[in-house]
Amino acid sequence: MTGFTRADALALDAADELAAARARFVLPEGEIYLDGNSLGALPRATAERLRHVVEAEWGRDLIRSWNTAGWIDLPQRVGDKIGRLVGAAPGQVVVADSTSVNLFKALSAALRLRPERRVILTERSNFPTDLYVAQGVIEQLGGRHELRLVGRDDVAGAIGPDTAVVMLTHVDYRTGAMHDMAGVTAAAHAHGALMLWDLAHSAGAMPVDLDGCGADFAVGCGYKYLNGGPGAPAFLYVAWRHQEAFRQPLTGWMGHAEPFAFGTDYRPAEGIRRALCGTPPVLSLAALEVGVDELLAVDLHAVRRKSLAMTGLFRRLVAGLGLEAVGPEDPRACGSQVSLRHPQGYAIVQALIARGIVGDFRAPDILRFGFAPLYLRFVDVWGAAAALADVLETGAWDRPEFHRRHAVT
Amino acid sequence: MTGFTRADALALDAADELAAARARFVLPEGEIYLDGNSLGALPRATAERLRHVVEAEWGRDLIRSWNTAGWIDLPQRVGDKIGRLVGAAPGQVVVADSTSVNLFKALSAALRLRPERRVILTERSNFPTDLYVAQGVIEQLGGRHELRLVGRDDVAGAIGPDTAVVMLTHVDYRTGAMHDMAGVTAAAHAHGALMLWDLAHSAGAMPVDLDGCGADFAVGCGYKYLNGGPGAPAFLYVAWRHQEAFRQPLTGWMGHAEPFAFGTDYRPAEGIRRALCGTPPVLSLAALEVGVDELLAVDLHAVRRKSLAMTGLFRRLVAGLGLEAVGPEDPRACGSQVSLRHPQGYAIVQALIARGIVGDFRAPDILRFGFAPLYLRFVDVWGAAAALADVLETGAWDRPEFHRRHAVT
Repeated sequence: MTGFTRADALALDAADELAAARARFVLPEGEIYLDGNSLGALPRATAERLRHVVEAEWGRDLIRSWNTAGWIDLPQRVGDKIGRLVGAAPGQVVVADSTSVNLFKALSAALRLRPERRVILTERSNFPTDLYVAQGVIEQLGGRHELRLVGRDDVAGAIGPDTAVVMLTHVDYRTGAMHDMAGVTAAAHAHGALMLWDLAHSAGAMPVDLDGCGADFAVGCGYKYLNGGPGAPAFLYVAWRHQEAFRQPLTGWMGHAEPFAFGTDYRPAEGIRRALCGTPPVLSLAALEVGVDELLAVDLHAVRRKSLAMTGLFRRLVAGLGLEAVGPEDPRACGSQVSLRHPQGYAIVQALIARGIVGDFRAPDILRFGFAPLYLRFVDVWGAAAALADVLETGAWDRPEFHRRHAVT
Repeated sequence: MTGFTRADALALDAADELAAARARFVLPEGEIYLDGNSLGALPRATAERLRHVVEAEWGRDLIRSWNTAGWIDLPQRVGDKIGRLVGAAPGQVVVADSTSVNLFKALSAALRLRPERRVILTERSNFPTDLYVAQGVIEQLGGRHELRLVGRDDVAGAIGPDTAVVMLTHVDYRTGAMHDMAGVTAAAHAHGALMLWDLAHSAGAMPVDLDGCGADFAVGCGYKYLNGGPGAPAFLYVAWRHQEAFRQPLTGWMGHAEPFAFGTDYRPAEGIRRALCGTPPVLSLAALEVGVDELLAVDLHAVRRKSLAMTGLFRRLVAGLGLEAVGPEDPRACGSQVSLRHPQGYAIVQALIARGIVGDFRAPDILRFGFAPLYLRFVDVWGAAAALADVLETGAWDRPEFHRRHAVT
């Protein structure tokens, strides 16, 4: 630890322009929750909103709420709100299904838009579901495409005339390393390829500018920094210029031009609504909207400033503890997390959890600490670093109960 | 109207073996809700269960609830419970995604299992999303398959050596007509075809025996007779004997053999779990489980008995009103609904809604009345018939405000 004290952390909290946001979330007593990048915390307003949706909209008004409560418009309404967080003008984002299902739609559509090209290019360390879904799309299309995996630094150079689509996760789930969205998108376009961004670890954690970067497609997750709740529905962005030609294979009735005409032939809706498939999950959409509203109430530039201050502070505080820092040294090249490497990472994370410091572990040896600026304080950063120092200095992690493995970590 | 009186209806209610179930649901004051086949009513226990999931499991326990609250097992746990309602032994049903997405998985898998056959056979009047999804699958596979639409009575005769899969909705959403599940399944198998049932309008409304009928695949809806809430997740059944060969294209991480090993190559999980794709929607799954539990607490044979008594009574009460009955005359050949035809059907449904009788309209001229046996009374059947008689006899429907069209009816 450095000379930085708890009092110094409290002074930073006193000056924090986002300090008031914390009171809008439920946080467990006596814990420091550094896993908002896996499951965001519960907004205080969510329980009341869900109670209203369940008791008044569903229980009392029943089927008519599809009109009177605007259920039928929720995918686009919440989508447009998320659009404001990720730099998308209205009409380009819908909330639907899971990130994986939306990846399937976007990749399928992208390959149709580049029929003469056969490569989906991505990095080897992309989040596995992105790779798996690409494999599923390729297999369904008869195996004539290739999923090309390259190292992180080799992506831009690997884009070529055979690249149909470049698919990248903006912020790496393990290391926190962030891609240059504008630069890579431009590189893809320079070769005639399309660009698909996965914003799982950036939406809600920092300003994102999909329109400004000229992105073609994007997907993202509702349950991390958007605080939409466990398994919240995901979102899909399709840039205006592609919407007329956008055809995705999950042609359910909600993506039909006239869902309630009950015709026998599929005809895609105008605009982004053609990206929908089944009936919208109203309860989950309502919960997600609350989480998104909390982010719309603050300035995402302020969120990013606080995020950089917190991750920078944590890095400095743990610098001398003998853990290897993972990812770029410059916090500005990272998302809102700090990843550290230790051969006993799993046991150390468990020992921290036993002390109320909730981070997580990613195989084989990564300790991952997420810093959600809306509800974390600098004193939490200090407390987490102090606990980590103590666990390491006392060898507290080296007890049998911290070496068990669980199904989900 | 016949000589059947309100007192006669009350006598039937007094003898109703399911009468106690009604108190377990929230029903709007002063209304008769005959649209449970579109959106099931709210179980009283749902709000409390959701409150617990939101406040304790999400808000307090956060990420650890994936293990401690069993979130990760919800798709299979609720799936097995639904299995008990549709005649599926454990391990063959998961809850996931929407009905449309699950149809996409099942149809894709079925065509892979019958690579030499090119026809998806269904009836022209199947629910549109079933047709649309089949069209999407066929287009994604390069257009070498055909969606063959035949009349309802021609299905069995149209099954032939080129039929890969027969896809039917067990109970017709418009007419209520019910297929002979065992008979059609046997006919499909006699020709080497696979059988896929859509149970949207039968799961929870009557006993279904998927295993006993030898069905290959089935999908179904969580928000109708299962009372899971608006846009509740759907379910997918894959018979044991197909699970090892079952490959579906939505290869997200939750269907992976080791989702948390974070490997780069997709490898399907053993068993039904390979039908999963993205992260399970926990809030929606919890709400659905409550609705399913309500059905598990009663005898589905009693549910069917009451359903037949209610639909039979309603048919008799409205028989002389000049509306054309739609679908089979024998209630035993129908689901839990009564459909009637009238050129001014839309306006009549609106006039009934204005009197608190909530049914719905299906284009071009169908008045549809669903009878959910768990929460409807015989006096409701009587009241609905009396109101319909009054609307027709007084011409009350013929007012301008009942002739507007809405987006969702």
